[in-house]
Amino acid sequence: MRTRSWWGWGWAQEALPDETCGQLAAAVPGCATVPVRVPDLRDVELRAPRIRPPDVLADRFSDSPPDRAGHTYGKAFRDVVRALAGDLTAAPDLVAFPRDERDVAAVLDWAGSTGVAVLPYGGGSSVVGGTEYRGGAHAGVVSLDLTGLTGVLEIDEVSRAARVLGGTLGPALEDELRPRRLTLRHFPQSFEFSTVGGWLATRAGGHYAMGRTHIDDLVESMRVVTPVGVAESWRLPGSGAGPSPDRLFLGSEGTLGVITEVWLRLQERPEHRASAAALFTDFDAAVEAVRMITQAGPVLSNCRLLDHQEARFSGAGTGEHAVLVLGAESASGPVDGVLAEAVEIARSHGADVQERGGAVSSWRSAFLKMPYVRDALARCGAVVETFETACTWAAAPALIAAVRAEVGAAVTQVCGAPGLLSCRFTHVYPDGPAPYFTVVAAGRPGAQLAQWDEIKVAAMEVLTKHHATVTHHHAVGRDHRPGYDRQRPDVFATALRATKAALDPHGVLNPGALIG
Amino acid sequence: MRTRSWWGWGWAQEALPDETCGQLAAAVPGCATVPVRVPDLRDVELRAPRIRPPDVLADRFSDSPPDRAGHTYGKAFRDVVRALAGDLTAAPDLVAFPRDERDVAAVLDWAGSTGVAVLPYGGGSSVVGGTEYRGGAHAGVVSLDLTGLTGVLEIDEVSRAARVLGGTLGPALEDELRPRRLTLRHFPQSFEFSTVGGWLATRAGGHYAMGRTHIDDLVESMRVVTPVGVAESWRLPGSGAGPSPDRLFLGSEGTLGVITEVWLRLQERPEHRASAAALFTDFDAAVEAVRMITQAGPVLSNCRLLDHQEARFSGAGTGEHAVLVLGAESASGPVDGVLAEAVEIARSHGADVQERGGAVSSWRSAFLKMPYVRDALARCGAVVETFETACTWAAAPALIAAVRAEVGAAVTQVCGAPGLLSCRFTHVYPDGPAPYFTVVAAGRPGAQLAQWDEIKVAAMEVLTKHHATVTHHHAVGRDHRPGYDRQRPDVFATALRATKAALDPHGVLNPGALIG
Repeated sequence: MRTRSWWGWGWAQEALPDETCGQLAAAVPGCATVPVRVPDLRDVELRAPRIRPPDVLADRFSDSPPDRAGHTYGKAFRDVVRALAGDLTAAPDLVAFPRDERDVAAVLDWAGSTGVAVLPYGGGSSVVGGTEYRGGAHAGVVSLDLTGLTGVLEIDEVSRAARVLGGTLGPALEDELRPRRLTLRHFPQSFEFSTVGGWLATRAGGHYAMGRTHIDDLVESMRVVTPVGVAESWRLPGSGAGPSPDRLFLGSEGTLGVITEVWLRLQERPEHRASAAALFTDFDAAVEAVRMITQAGPVLSNCRLLDHQEARFSGAGTGEHAVLVLGAESASGPVDGVLAEAVEIARSHGADVQERGGAVSSWRSAFLKMPYVRDALARCGAVVETFETACTWAAAPALIAAVRAEVGAAVTQVCGAPGLLSCRFTHVYPDGPAPYFTVVAAGRPGAQLAQWDEIKVAAMEVLTKHHATVTHHHAVGRDHRPGYDRQRPDVFATALRATKAALDPHGVLNPGALIG
Repeated sequence: MRTRSWWGWGWAQEALPDETCGQLAAAVPGCATVPVRVPDLRDVELRAPRIRPPDVLADRFSDSPPDRAGHTYGKAFRDVVRALAGDLTAAPDLVAFPRDERDVAAVLDWAGSTGVAVLPYGGGSSVVGGTEYRGGAHAGVVSLDLTGLTGVLEIDEVSRAARVLGGTLGPALEDELRPRRLTLRHFPQSFEFSTVGGWLATRAGGHYAMGRTHIDDLVESMRVVTPVGVAESWRLPGSGAGPSPDRLFLGSEGTLGVITEVWLRLQERPEHRASAAALFTDFDAAVEAVRMITQAGPVLSNCRLLDHQEARFSGAGTGEHAVLVLGAESASGPVDGVLAEAVEIARSHGADVQERGGAVSSWRSAFLKMPYVRDALARCGAVVETFETACTWAAAPALIAAVRAEVGAAVTQVCGAPGLLSCRFTHVYPDGPAPYFTVVAAGRPGAQLAQWDEIKVAAMEVLTKHHATVTHHHAVGRDHRPGYDRQRPDVFATALRATKAALDPHGVLNPGALIG
């Protein structure tokens, strides 16, 4: 029986053993190799709850320390470090477990009338402080755990769409679609531990590199409980009737309402697959090849470029090459032709192509276990975190160079050594890539967080200067507010604040995230 | 030297001659065959302007009768009928011709301080009353003609995007892209007579049937002048930073701001093409074939299904068959394989397939001249108009049957004979089609408009009952308000009104369209 980790990523039982932690940390120059002990929850102090649930909803609330501890943070590096230090000062007073939409509405009503902040909580995998209360004038804080609203309510096989409850976790969704040979085909890295409603609220990116990767495009209609009523859009394959209602709630990060139901567009499960790995000595040549592949037309399922450091770090390469992981898949027929076209472009840019090589599966398995590795390194005192963005192809070379120079300098200054600063493209579009950067360096005991904060400021500074988005698929939450506030047009901020005031007049929904 | 028609579609010089009008009308049972005379503008009465332009902007304004007449209406059937009757009571007091963004901002400032309504006007091709003032408490009305803001300012060939001024008409855009072998590949039926900014403001649909047809997906960033400031989003291929700012203005129909600039995503000009026409005896079998083709994966450039009546009316068929017009195109390589897959599906559903038949070019040429035919029939007293929608595949059969029954009954009751009520799919998505209906019937002299209004109520009623969108790509304007107000979630209306109040505090921007 697996249980969720209260302090780190995913399953408690899959946290890496101390010995592995040490082995991993040994590869980080200057890093300690003895991991700190994970505190026993019984030893961690939690402030007494300041509020009581309303009597009629009492059985939907919990004030148990494990529930409160498990709902204090998301799963960012800063969350893990604080949890490991036994710092749970941000713990919610209560955790609500609604069983249906009526419960959600009742919690919002009660919160509005009592001035209690409500933080919608799906799978809890936020890496941007999306579910953590960070101060304000609220009478108390409730984490609203939505995983009780789970399941597929309806499948329309003719139109290929499914009506899904917002609290449904990724695997539960796919398990229900599989017998119909259908799939949503949306696999964020957090797939196991994130919910459908969370994907919508944060505009999640799937792990397919090209085409319609953002969940936005897979939404046919949605149902949102707001403090002033329920918004439900019609199921429409396309519409030109005014600004899209769905696009207002997509990315609203729980600040405007709680997504309780959604009709999602499905597709047939792919049965034909092909993959290859292309090795480039020159990273710039690889970037150019990826641009050509992306602009050529055919949509690949995978087109992930790892720079030399990233390839070594993930085990997909030796560090002598940048590695381009290519994959194609289809439900209707062989995809070798599509893959061959991409391979041909890669070769014409100097790549050595390994068809069906080990690099592809090495990368995939590293990708899925990476968050556990992050936790292991964090326990050994490393500064280990990622940040991601997107920009045009024209802007990419200068941006990547600036990140390497300026964030690299910040890492060196803050950590005393350059550490690892690697880059990969997680998603690519005809007009630009989504570069994703990983930082790993030995930290100072007790100062890991302050060190990362300093590096993060430098990172956000570079992104802003180059007009690269502060986040491609991690959302804004609270951690990205400084960058986001500079990025979004002021006029749009005015519009968003007006909308927030109209839909959440008491300002109880996820205060501090995104806006307000 | 061609000039724009002040009363009807497109070029004045391409209006069909009286004799042709009569020949066309002869095919409509009961229709007069002598077209009414187009009034001489010198005989049409225009109310004296109630307002004067501000002195500093005087040379940007016109109060000339031809300018005011030409900016009174869009190009819907109801607009043509009123213009032909010499009814220009809705004429704006003044027409503004800004030369740049500063002029636009100055006009908005002046309008806000004086309570003058401003109606943004691009190519003037609205068929939903999008540019017509229909009453309110404003001191006067200005039509803001944006075609002075024209041209491509910048082309980024690396990222394949262009910065384009909002008032640029379709052909001017493509003319500038052609030498670079690039294209926006967005060809609404109004292409010649509509602007880039108008496409964005109305969420225009291109004439490509599948894939990313709505302009929404082709927008990389945009610049909007609002009464409270300029909103400019960053050029981003993808982003997860909050709700999309662009999606707020896409479809805002001039009610929140004036779109002055946009970065549009481009692609290489296709060089490889293939087309075919598939003839079905059974319309339902054709619908099923189209669904299969759409869900199979490969994106066709054309996949338009015409029912028996539509095929005959457009000259693409004899009336004995429904005709499916198929086309594929690509910049990178032959598309015969893609087309063959679609043809195979059509054949397996009983189609007789004509490869490179005359039906394809017949349909295309009919498509482009259709608005002129509409004007010709209107002059002969016909009731002739279209309405379009979108719904899921599961909902489509019942919707189409209900339209045929209920709108058909309305036509018979209102016009005394069934007339023509045809259906085509203009766009198809994996989860549903966009059915487009054409009504042609003999009208009563002087009552054409009232007759259409009655039919339109029946049409909107059916769409609403079946939760099919009130418009797939014609926008809401003023004509679709009754349906739109029932379609959009109330909570979203609340959000939109709050946004409108925040961005347009004096309520001067396109009052009555979409909201307010």
